[in-house]
Amino acid sequence: MHIRVYATPGCIRPGDLCGATAVVIDALRMTSVAAAAVANGCAGLCTAVDIDEARELASRHGALLGGERNALQIDGFDFSNSPSAYTRGRVGGRRLVMTTTNGTRAIDAAGAAEKLLLGAFVNARAVAESARGAENVALVCAGTHGLFSLEDALAAGAIIDRLRRIGVSFQPDDMAIATRTLYATAGGDLHTALRETTHYNRLVGLGLKDDLDFCLREDTVDAVPERGADGWFR
Amino acid sequence: MHIRVYATPGCIRPGDLCGATAVVIDALRMTSVAAAAVANGCAGLCTAVDIDEARELASRHGALLGGERNALQIDGFDFSNSPSAYTRGRVGGRRLVMTTTNGTRAIDAAGAAEKLLLGAFVNARAVAESARGAENVALVCAGTHGLFSLEDALAAGAIIDRLRRIGVSFQPDDMAIATRTLYATAGGDLHTALRETTHYNRLVGLGLKDDLDFCLREDTVDAVPERGADGWFR
Repeated sequence: MHIRVYATPGCIRPGDLCGATAVVIDALRMTSVAAAAVANGCAGLCTAVDIDEARELASRHGALLGGERNALQIDGFDFSNSPSAYTRGRVGGRRLVMTTTNGTRAIDAAGAAEKLLLGAFVNARAVAESARGAENVALVCAGTHGLFSLEDALAAGAIIDRLRRIGVSFQPDDMAIATRTLYATAGGDLHTALRETTHYNRLVGLGLKDDLDFCLREDTVDAVPERGADGWFR
Repeated sequence: MHIRVYATPGCIRPGDLCGATAVVIDALRMTSVAAAAVANGCAGLCTAVDIDEARELASRHGALLGGERNALQIDGFDFSNSPSAYTRGRVGGRRLVMTTTNGTRAIDAAGAAEKLLLGAFVNARAVAESARGAENVALVCAGTHGLFSLEDALAAGAIIDRLRRIGVSFQPDDMAIATRTLYATAGGDLHTALRETTHYNRLVGLGLKDDLDFCLREDTVDAVPERGADGWFR
């Protein structure tokens, strides 16, 4: 297996993802939310880049609306971007349309991949199981407003760690080596590893400590949202 | 001081470098070569993106020609990209035009900076001294063919380490935090930290072990090439 890690979606070059299994990572919080929603029986999840498109899609499919702008709930939406809201009672059997600042754009940027998964700390082990047979794996860090964000790199490192643990042999590119080292150095204490970082501190400042606790717990969710032939993740 | 680190030149957004002190890092080998050449009395160094432009510039200024394509010497050029060739006897008092695959492009991408320096492991401490008064410092990793290259990230971490050692207080962005951690984790053994990486192994395969030894020794050169008003580095 070849593993490449993209520091931001902007680092993907045309043709890079052809035939690859791509994993989009927006650990704080979109791909953590998506994993939780799918684990709780959500019947299908899709993403829209802008709010109007999200409303239109939701209306057409009778879907719920979730997401954020600048980390805050969008007016008239059913959910913010807090994973605890996506309970079985609320999302079970329902479709869900999401629009978020960074995760949605990363999913679009990775659209050319043959197989497209959503990964985070919460489902790192399950992602590794799902990707284990692939020849080329691309881990796409969503970043924040186009900039590198350490939490996504650490989550990429967590997924690489799980691939190693289940016995997959792989050739990492330089960014994969870097994220593997960063994850190993964190030694399981992700809150400390992120204590100086931009997005983590923004969420702390907004009082979203519970969201951070949820998103930084590892291997708590077995579901891996995977894009189907119709473009919806299940 | 705010410190931002760009994983590749492609990560620089328009306007980012306005008013900043930028340090371009192509540790293997261009910015190491440039530091050595300036330390050995080179009267001025400039870079050209393509070979024809390099020849034209050298002819106009009576300059020597150095650089590489795919790590190898260019036909008719005075120097390859091996730092040991740039001795006082050969470059002292002479101008030098260089064209290299990655370093030259990174210098162009960072052109909007107010102050533009060339940094590497060999002059990390001297770069920190030169940048210490700046409000905004941007460390621009050249990468390899547009991709992230670990050696440049480690050299960025080395420069951040030297800023800390000389008592500069700073706010790092996420990539600066990552490179600082990667450098600290390497524990001074850069050869081991790079043993799996792409560009390092390419140079090993070409028999350029001496170049690697030179470029991975830290703080051996006091010179910091800085772009002058005429665009030449001195």
